[in-house]
Amino acid sequence: MNIDYSKINKIIINKPLKLDCGETLEKFDIAYETFGRLDESKSNAILVFHALSGDQFVTGTNKVTGREGWWNYVVGPSLSIDTNKYFVICANVLGGCMGSSGPKEIDPKTNKPYGLNFPVITIKDMVSAQIHLLDYLGIDKTLCVLGGSMGGMQALQFCSLFPNRTYSSVPVACAASHSAQNIAFNELARQAIMADPNWDSGNYFLSGKVPRNGLAVARMAGHISYLSEQGLENKFGRKLQEGEGLKFSFDADFQVESYLKYQGYAFVDRFDANSYLYITRAMDYFDLYKLNNGNLSKAFKDTKVKFCIISFSTDWLYPTEESKKIVIALNSIGAKVSFVNIITNNGHDSFLVEEPEFFQTLKGFLDSTYEDFKNENSR
Amino acid sequence: MNIDYSKINKIIINKPLKLDCGETLEKFDIAYETFGRLDESKSNAILVFHALSGDQFVTGTNKVTGREGWWNYVVGPSLSIDTNKYFVICANVLGGCMGSSGPKEIDPKTNKPYGLNFPVITIKDMVSAQIHLLDYLGIDKTLCVLGGSMGGMQALQFCSLFPNRTYSSVPVACAASHSAQNIAFNELARQAIMADPNWDSGNYFLSGKVPRNGLAVARMAGHISYLSEQGLENKFGRKLQEGEGLKFSFDADFQVESYLKYQGYAFVDRFDANSYLYITRAMDYFDLYKLNNGNLSKAFKDTKVKFCIISFSTDWLYPTEESKKIVIALNSIGAKVSFVNIITNNGHDSFLVEEPEFFQTLKGFLDSTYEDFKNENSR
Repeated sequence: MNIDYSKINKIIINKPLKLDCGETLEKFDIAYETFGRLDESKSNAILVFHALSGDQFVTGTNKVTGREGWWNYVVGPSLSIDTNKYFVICANVLGGCMGSSGPKEIDPKTNKPYGLNFPVITIKDMVSAQIHLLDYLGIDKTLCVLGGSMGGMQALQFCSLFPNRTYSSVPVACAASHSAQNIAFNELARQAIMADPNWDSGNYFLSGKVPRNGLAVARMAGHISYLSEQGLENKFGRKLQEGEGLKFSFDADFQVESYLKYQGYAFVDRFDANSYLYITRAMDYFDLYKLNNGNLSKAFKDTKVKFCIISFSTDWLYPTEESKKIVIALNSIGAKVSFVNIITNNGHDSFLVEEPEFFQTLKGFLDSTYEDFKNENSR
Repeated sequence: MNIDYSKINKIIINKPLKLDCGETLEKFDIAYETFGRLDESKSNAILVFHALSGDQFVTGTNKVTGREGWWNYVVGPSLSIDTNKYFVICANVLGGCMGSSGPKEIDPKTNKPYGLNFPVITIKDMVSAQIHLLDYLGIDKTLCVLGGSMGGMQALQFCSLFPNRTYSSVPVACAASHSAQNIAFNELARQAIMADPNWDSGNYFLSGKVPRNGLAVARMAGHISYLSEQGLENKFGRKLQEGEGLKFSFDADFQVESYLKYQGYAFVDRFDANSYLYITRAMDYFDLYKLNNGNLSKAFKDTKVKFCIISFSTDWLYPTEESKKIVIALNSIGAKVSFVNIITNNGHDSFLVEEPEFFQTLKGFLDSTYEDFKNENSR
């Protein structure tokens, strides 16, 4: 794939960012895209956070990879996040590989890629970096911060850190901390990458040999966890790849095998293996319970943010139970919170695919919240 | 680990074995162990089938690896499968790596290890090979054939192929065919192995370099699937490896990470990477529905075998639903079948760990069935 990174919009933040690990980034880049137009009262800004493998190209065509935006079902004219109505902002996360500072980028101290010299970052660091983008864009308070999966975690972390910077939030298909099973899947992925000799302790940029196999296997593990058992059964079952018979070999016999291989190796062309390590690490470290001494309510004390928590019934990566814990914590401090668990077979992937009830829920929440926020701003 | 393969008991079967793939093994080895003594009326023989990573060393000390037998909780004096009472037989599966013919063994045609020249085998082939062991031991009819996971699949296949060679059967934690999710996990494992450059298209015996990393990652994927989410949460949660703080590195921070790494790399010392490919392939190909034109009942038509089907409530690899399908199929042809779904947090691993209800269920079934079988044989 022909990747043209020159097409990335970015701002350079010349303020030091103190990270959770103790290190400080003296300056850093944030690559971002916006869609739609900011209205006069600045009441229509929506900050979208992307998930592990996402980027700032939420909708339309990804200017770098030429692929479709990852949330084309959700963001666009007349869609749930209506770009005729809202001003949508999305930034590549810190540690990512689509232009924001991360292991692939040049370390100003050495003029070589950071590699593993990039500091280990957290969800809090990602969110702290992005507040500078809002400042740069002149947005004091967004209408909504939202995202699915790791995007939802960022939304939660944002509301906890900067409760006055958003009017509402929609954390989708996420959890307030990573479970042992979540960590296990991510560790499997990291081990697959680090097991690839081409990875070379993260210095593959020196040899030019990419740890393709390791990253592909990591991505396959991800894809297994994104689909529900029933979803896989409906989509693939035991359908064979071609013809009728088994091949009695180790090539792909079943369609589910070629799907996984395809997803794994396609990913390698557009994602950086070290970024995958950094971002999964940030997810594993995420623990809003621990940050608040075990009391999740404390994370949102006195919050005025209006929440809509959305989960999917067959999401076994971030089960509905995890969303309920967030709802309970918010309820217990009298926060404004609604909760929708959408019944579907699409597993964790539900937030990325055709899921009408999700679209409707999101649209309804945003449109009514927008009216409230506009009224508040015009007072 | 010092592996001494000279301690393996095996028989050489000098009869051709026609395989499902179309090829024929002109002769083949079966490595096996027995425990306890065959009674005079030959009414007390129990054939145990092992799972993916198991072997013939069911109980006591594995003579080859020095480790404990894999079913030490279940098989032994006064245990559920009481070796004071029963004559327990277990053979290494065809395609395995503990002495039975498989990719690690010498191909008599070339005097070199088979590697990928070993034919791709099926669960039916495994079972067809083992009937020769019963013949060799002079056992016309076992009291019971049983096993967990792939062992359960072999038990089902045995009963379908050789309904007159066993009085009863206990398929545990298994399914009558592999689901798309099962295949996906196995494919992930195979891709991890084949991605390791040391694997060298299965010819690693030439270089002497073992695909350690690939096999370890494969095994980690397995371990994730063997435990339930709740089990992982109870066992590890977010407990840190040592001390209190996060390391902000890619070493193991969480206990669940070091557990997975340990399990992965310990496995490499005792298992052959090519065998892992062959055995997972056999599991994926297993489909008793398809072998019977979609009608599972046909697999057991007119069977006199007495079945006890056992599943575990949090086993998401072979969910209870899959066992129920077997029970329904057996019921619909009036077969003798009992069914126990054991409520536990231990996931698929339940059949290998301390699980008192399972022990009791198995013991009760075997002991009462033994009385019936003895009476029948003494008539």
